[in-house]
Amino acid sequence: MTKVIKEEKIILITNDDGITSPGIKNLVEAARGLGKVVVVAPDKPQSGMGHAITIGSPLRMNKVELFEGVEAWQTSGTPVDCVKLAVDKILHRKPDICLSGINHGANHSINVIYSGTMSAAMEASIEGIPSIGFSLLDYRYEADMMPAQKIVHTIVSTILKQKKLDKHLLLNVNIPSVPYEEIKGIKICKQAYAKYDEAFDERVDPQGKKYFWLTGEFKNFDKGKDTDVWALQRNYVSVVPVQFDLTNYTLKKHLEKTISFK
Amino acid sequence: MTKVIKEEKIILITNDDGITSPGIKNLVEAARGLGKVVVVAPDKPQSGMGHAITIGSPLRMNKVELFEGVEAWQTSGTPVDCVKLAVDKILHRKPDICLSGINHGANHSINVIYSGTMSAAMEASIEGIPSIGFSLLDYRYEADMMPAQKIVHTIVSTILKQKKLDKHLLLNVNIPSVPYEEIKGIKICKQAYAKYDEAFDERVDPQGKKYFWLTGEFKNFDKGKDTDVWALQRNYVSVVPVQFDLTNYTLKKHLEKTISFK
Repeated sequence: MTKVIKEEKIILITNDDGITSPGIKNLVEAARGLGKVVVVAPDKPQSGMGHAITIGSPLRMNKVELFEGVEAWQTSGTPVDCVKLAVDKILHRKPDICLSGINHGANHSINVIYSGTMSAAMEASIEGIPSIGFSLLDYRYEADMMPAQKIVHTIVSTILKQKKLDKHLLLNVNIPSVPYEEIKGIKICKQAYAKYDEAFDERVDPQGKKYFWLTGEFKNFDKGKDTDVWALQRNYVSVVPVQFDLTNYTLKKHLEKTISFK
Repeated sequence: MTKVIKEEKIILITNDDGITSPGIKNLVEAARGLGKVVVVAPDKPQSGMGHAITIGSPLRMNKVELFEGVEAWQTSGTPVDCVKLAVDKILHRKPDICLSGINHGANHSINVIYSGTMSAAMEASIEGIPSIGFSLLDYRYEADMMPAQKIVHTIVSTILKQKKLDKHLLLNVNIPSVPYEEIKGIKICKQAYAKYDEAFDERVDPQGKKYFWLTGEFKNFDKGKDTDVWALQRNYVSVVPVQFDLTNYTLKKHLEKTISFK
């Protein structure tokens, strides 16, 4: 369905806030001129979907006119489904890079695991497509995305210029929500150990039955100066290289020495 | 809602196939006698949900009588939601261990990322609860779970006997689908690099519109003799220690040396 012009790089764009979110529009603008942009994104918000895939029901996809001069498709699937559909049914090849976002809200630290934005990027990385997820530390739909757009452009053009791009390259980029002039720079970081202290808001419905809303307070337990949370608190853009090999090699060695399941 | 008897260990059990699946019943039987078992599981199948959480809609939970002498709750949430609800609204404390499964089907290699079974276990590990996910290499509901039940009992009792249990301990256990006598032993492994070659089955609905079913062929690219896929092919039970710090430290070092985003 997509005609590939030789030499031009194919940039696949997706997100988890849905194809109509301002974030994806800003990502398209940031990528303009760096290659042929193709958008394949969910037809509705899919925040917090993690690495969910759709296996119990079929998927739909429709071409839409939302971004001037850019081929765009919306699908009924999750962000991960979008990447799979893009490669198999729309591009009929692997794109040169996959960009996901710009997410409305932080995906630093432990959020990488819950984030649909990062799961879409991880899916691409598993497939052997270099991939970057972008998130702005501002949940509001009316957030000023212009500083983020400039930073995304800088990062993507820098990465695309690399001679030997690792096909499994996967970056989690978070951008502080401050005017462009106040951004101090870009730091390569590790994922902070932080988590949510969950509390459920308990309510009673009109039929007298209980229901629960997930709420929670974010807590950073990581005091290191090399973490994404540390960098973001100081108005740096954080770039965390991410991997999909979840093996805990330290624990592996320890278990081999200490445990026998006889 | 749960009375805690001093000294007795609390074993939280969940899964992603839903509370009525044979796998969770077998896990409850395997854990009997090792502590006070409490079940909190989804009220419907949630396979492939990854680390999804429910943030856009409220959750329901109801006490059910499904396992003799065992407190059990079904929730409308994902496997990850179940762990959060269990800690905050049912146990009102962290359990001593969280067990997830027994999943109907393999969760070795890259499947760890898509698996609701493993995501529930990972959520517990993030919370500081030692956790183990169990999967049997047989998708059928009528699968013979008796060999798996014995192995689960051996592994859980061995882990519970450890003096200093890492609070973030997280194990991905896969069990070959063969008679107990044919199981060669238990091997500590790394996650194999494998992936699915996706293909979507394209169909046309009665209204003439296209829809797509996700299908795919599993391919193992990892020739190592220390992987879970290798061990399982030789009828060993594979135990992969898993971590939730996704930072790629090798790539981090490399990027620090080679890339400047000026």
